[in-house]
Amino acid sequence: MCEANAYWTEDGNERLILESVDTVEAEGPGLWRLVNIFGEQRSVQGRISGMSLVEHKIVFEALNQ
Amino acid sequence: MCEANAYWTEDGNERLILESVDTVEAEGPGLWRLVNIFGEQRSVQGRISGMSLVEHKIVFEALNQ
Repeated sequence: MCEANAYWTEDGNERLILESVDTVEAEGPGLWRLVNIFGEQRSVQGRISGMSLVEHKIVFEALNQ
Repeated sequence: MCEANAYWTEDGNERLILESVDTVEAEGPGLWRLVNIFGEQRSVQGRISGMSLVEHKIVFEALNQ
């Protein structure tokens, strides 16, 4: 499977938001809905700073960074 | 490998931007740098409308949509 883990980065630290994310949908300006392969959902307010799919990683950060 | 194909969507049509994308980096407001597993790069001006990693797909759209 090719899902990725979603992280929140702040002050150089990364915190796991949701593992095994399949879909990421833009719901509005700076608002994202994550759904993983188990059907779990999280909403994230921020922006995507980057991702590496080969490393199974999506990183979000605060909008004002 | 868990790369994804990047598409541009406009008026209901999707156009391939770059295949086998590994990394997506936010370079500035609405500016993205895509690099694929072959080392090819593309810059995209727009926003991410959504992605499905299980379907190997990332979709970008114009900022003003």
